[in-house]
Amino acid sequence: MCPQIELAGARGVQYPLRLREVWVKLDGRQGSGTMSVKQKLTKEETLQLRKKHIGPSCKLFFRSDPLKIVRAAGCYMYDEKGCRYLDCINNVCHVGHCHPQVVSAAVEQMSVLNTNSRFLHDNLVLYAERLTSLFPEKLNVCFFVNSGSEANDLAIRLARTHTGKKDVITLDHAYHGHVTSLIDISPYKFNHPGGEGQRDWVHVAPVPDVYRGKYTDKDFTVEECTKKYADEVKQLCDKATKLHGGVSIFFAESMQSCGGQIVYPPGYLRQVYSHVRAAGGVCLADEVQVGFGRVGSHMWAFQTQGDDIVPDIVTLGKPMGNGHPVSAVITTREIAESFGATGMEYFNTFGGNPVSAAIANAVLDAIEKENLLDNATKIGNFLKQEFNRLKGKHAIIGDVRGEGMFLGVDLEQYVLLSNDGPYRNVLKFKSPMVFGMEDAKELVEKLDAIMTEMEAAENIVTNGMEKLMVNGNHDPRQQQQLTNGHANNNIDAPSEIQVKV
Amino acid sequence: MCPQIELAGARGVQYPLRLREVWVKLDGRQGSGTMSVKQKLTKEETLQLRKKHIGPSCKLFFRSDPLKIVRAAGCYMYDEKGCRYLDCINNVCHVGHCHPQVVSAAVEQMSVLNTNSRFLHDNLVLYAERLTSLFPEKLNVCFFVNSGSEANDLAIRLARTHTGKKDVITLDHAYHGHVTSLIDISPYKFNHPGGEGQRDWVHVAPVPDVYRGKYTDKDFTVEECTKKYADEVKQLCDKATKLHGGVSIFFAESMQSCGGQIVYPPGYLRQVYSHVRAAGGVCLADEVQVGFGRVGSHMWAFQTQGDDIVPDIVTLGKPMGNGHPVSAVITTREIAESFGATGMEYFNTFGGNPVSAAIANAVLDAIEKENLLDNATKIGNFLKQEFNRLKGKHAIIGDVRGEGMFLGVDLEQYVLLSNDGPYRNVLKFKSPMVFGMEDAKELVEKLDAIMTEMEAAENIVTNGMEKLMVNGNHDPRQQQQLTNGHANNNIDAPSEIQVKV
Repeated sequence: MCPQIELAGARGVQYPLRLREVWVKLDGRQGSGTMSVKQKLTKEETLQLRKKHIGPSCKLFFRSDPLKIVRAAGCYMYDEKGCRYLDCINNVCHVGHCHPQVVSAAVEQMSVLNTNSRFLHDNLVLYAERLTSLFPEKLNVCFFVNSGSEANDLAIRLARTHTGKKDVITLDHAYHGHVTSLIDISPYKFNHPGGEGQRDWVHVAPVPDVYRGKYTDKDFTVEECTKKYADEVKQLCDKATKLHGGVSIFFAESMQSCGGQIVYPPGYLRQVYSHVRAAGGVCLADEVQVGFGRVGSHMWAFQTQGDDIVPDIVTLGKPMGNGHPVSAVITTREIAESFGATGMEYFNTFGGNPVSAAIANAVLDAIEKENLLDNATKIGNFLKQEFNRLKGKHAIIGDVRGEGMFLGVDLEQYVLLSNDGPYRNVLKFKSPMVFGMEDAKELVEKLDAIMTEMEAAENIVTNGMEKLMVNGNHDPRQQQQLTNGHANNNIDAPSEIQVKV
Repeated sequence: MCPQIELAGARGVQYPLRLREVWVKLDGRQGSGTMSVKQKLTKEETLQLRKKHIGPSCKLFFRSDPLKIVRAAGCYMYDEKGCRYLDCINNVCHVGHCHPQVVSAAVEQMSVLNTNSRFLHDNLVLYAERLTSLFPEKLNVCFFVNSGSEANDLAIRLARTHTGKKDVITLDHAYHGHVTSLIDISPYKFNHPGGEGQRDWVHVAPVPDVYRGKYTDKDFTVEECTKKYADEVKQLCDKATKLHGGVSIFFAESMQSCGGQIVYPPGYLRQVYSHVRAAGGVCLADEVQVGFGRVGSHMWAFQTQGDDIVPDIVTLGKPMGNGHPVSAVITTREIAESFGATGMEYFNTFGGNPVSAAIANAVLDAIEKENLLDNATKIGNFLKQEFNRLKGKHAIIGDVRGEGMFLGVDLEQYVLLSNDGPYRNVLKFKSPMVFGMEDAKELVEKLDAIMTEMEAAENIVTNGMEKLMVNGNHDPRQQQQLTNGHANNNIDAPSEIQVKV
């Protein structure tokens, strides 16, 4: 989750524009009574106790004035004063905060049995059957774990065991999780403060971003971009083969989230999978952030690249339990058998317990019964259309992209203090899937107003505004890159860095 | 969790004695009606669906006839036919299966808010305050995660960042988790089938087991054993310093669980911590299995080694949420600051969410209100006394050890098909903490009967029974070692290996 709208202008001016404003403070009723939640601590006391007892590496949204959220429902969150916020960024509470049927399913199972998967239980196997039925046929074996990080780590182990190789190909700016093995394959982490740099078994391919990447649609056709990006992966396969005898896995999100809401050009995964498999490797689709229908047109984002695109391993996480810690690895019988054949057991204490399975099942129920894929398509299309309209109106918007409820607005000349994307300039929209049309209209209206306000302020503050352009490069796409480089480490974290020019 | 009582006699005879028997089948009522849970699948259907969709590396208890458990309460579990089992091994459902107040706390919070820790929330900070108040003062900073594996991985990262060193000292037979970095420091895994052997940055110290270890109380005084075991760690510190310039962390459970319920001799941690700190390393207590009062006398097992024993990092897991995926790392301000100073954020999507914190808090309530530490001491002492009585009666019992509800019965000349301990010969008792006196009496009675039955069967089957002794070694402690070596990989897994002699 990344907060979206804390901006600094080109000259380091910080606007008092915050996520909370764009999330839309719908009303300002102070402690309206109904549904209010009694607080044990004042916000200041909560903050001080947090500073005392929670590791400083765990960041809050908005360091200068964090939000204290006390309750939530659907796509609304409420602070301690009863103020309501429209949640545009929570990609975990997928079917809506505190979805009643999900809560009921949890309660019902928690009251009856919650134990480990060493015992037979219907919830586990019925959910596994249902989940795998949503995938291409060959993806029919599950491993249940607690988090996307556990899933991605296990995926590496599966791939290495199956292929007998160690090398991993990852995409630049990628983030795959917080455990040691995943920081090693996340350029977003290892290339940034506190990172240890690139391991010799990790190979970083450029993100197939045709707007701001290595090959853009300014210089090439999209087909040429696709081939060039895929060929880069092929070269890395060759390199891995030369260095270490082969490649184990191509590890990529099906659309890149933390890297800036990047949708790959058509054919990219087809060509890449072909190269990787020719080199003896397997292909992974990390659907932790983009799965479960977020893209609207399909349940899984890899499916947007064609019906013939079938990864060897898929990892799931964040939205799977609507906030409950449950995640999964889905793979082929062949890979699962290779892993089983070593004789090493895989045991995950909480993974696949009856409560986690009941909750995950209720989430699928909600997605289906409430037609949330259709909603994602409808709202996503509307928002894309409106963001494009705003693009015509506001020079700040350079690109609008994404699918369904996975949308990115790429900004020029502005740096998001609460960032995302390698250049800290992408507004990400990834709300709960129950986001409605009225919510969407309100979001657009507010965004429009904020951008208008910013532009006015910009003009007032500096008439002779020093342009961000440096090195004589006048393409706005390149400016951020040159100015801010890869300064962004805090994938999901707000850090109020001022950008001085 | 390890099943306990599936035994093969010395000659490979398998006894029809199973965990379920020692768990005590309290009654055989078929579908008694009350509290019965409607099943969607027959047991056979569940099993077949599991085979189809769950990775074969995920093992069931009792491969030949797995248990289907459909409900549980307190320390009882019920199968699909309504048969009741006394749970002697579930160290996760700490305050009792489906504890009503824990379920209530979950429900209450789930209905109101469940979101990530980027927002301020009272549950997180109040729980952190309460949890750290249970530790020595300097251990006052928390990181909340989902599993013991996530906690232990983070602990390695903290230690490496703080010390600037990479090397880890671990104990032989140790198991610390299922992610890549932890398999690397778990001899239980890396030395066994599917394992990749020992990394050059991992150093394995012998388990300070004075009964069956490298130095025993047969050859030395306990004080001598302590010093010899601690000196082995010192030698590894010297080795790590020589090889790689230092040691980052001494990584050990406070009592060794999967290694066979080993209680370290007095003074061991004091001497080891002193050696490790002198070498510039930090000391970790893995309390994932032994924490939260299981040892009865103290909340944390490291405390049994003396009030002056203060680890630099403690990891918590399994019992913390009574089955809900919540775990933690507790460390010093100094180490947390070192980690924070790198600038790399630590974000855990589900870790420390309001629901996990509410559940963990309710577990502490139950531990306190129900005096479960006192219960662990009372029941544990009774069981130890009774197991010792059985030891006098049955030659099969070689050693009885442990504290509170962490007990081990070390068996001679028998191999547990559903194992534990490096030689597959340790019966482990680690029930929910609500185990009662009547339950304890029933367990002892059943165990006595089973052992009597086994001895009788042994005598009937072979008069001229070939003794297990090989190589002229007549010390029963050594027999298993010589015969079975380190064949045991499946830490928590039943595998019906027949031992042929």
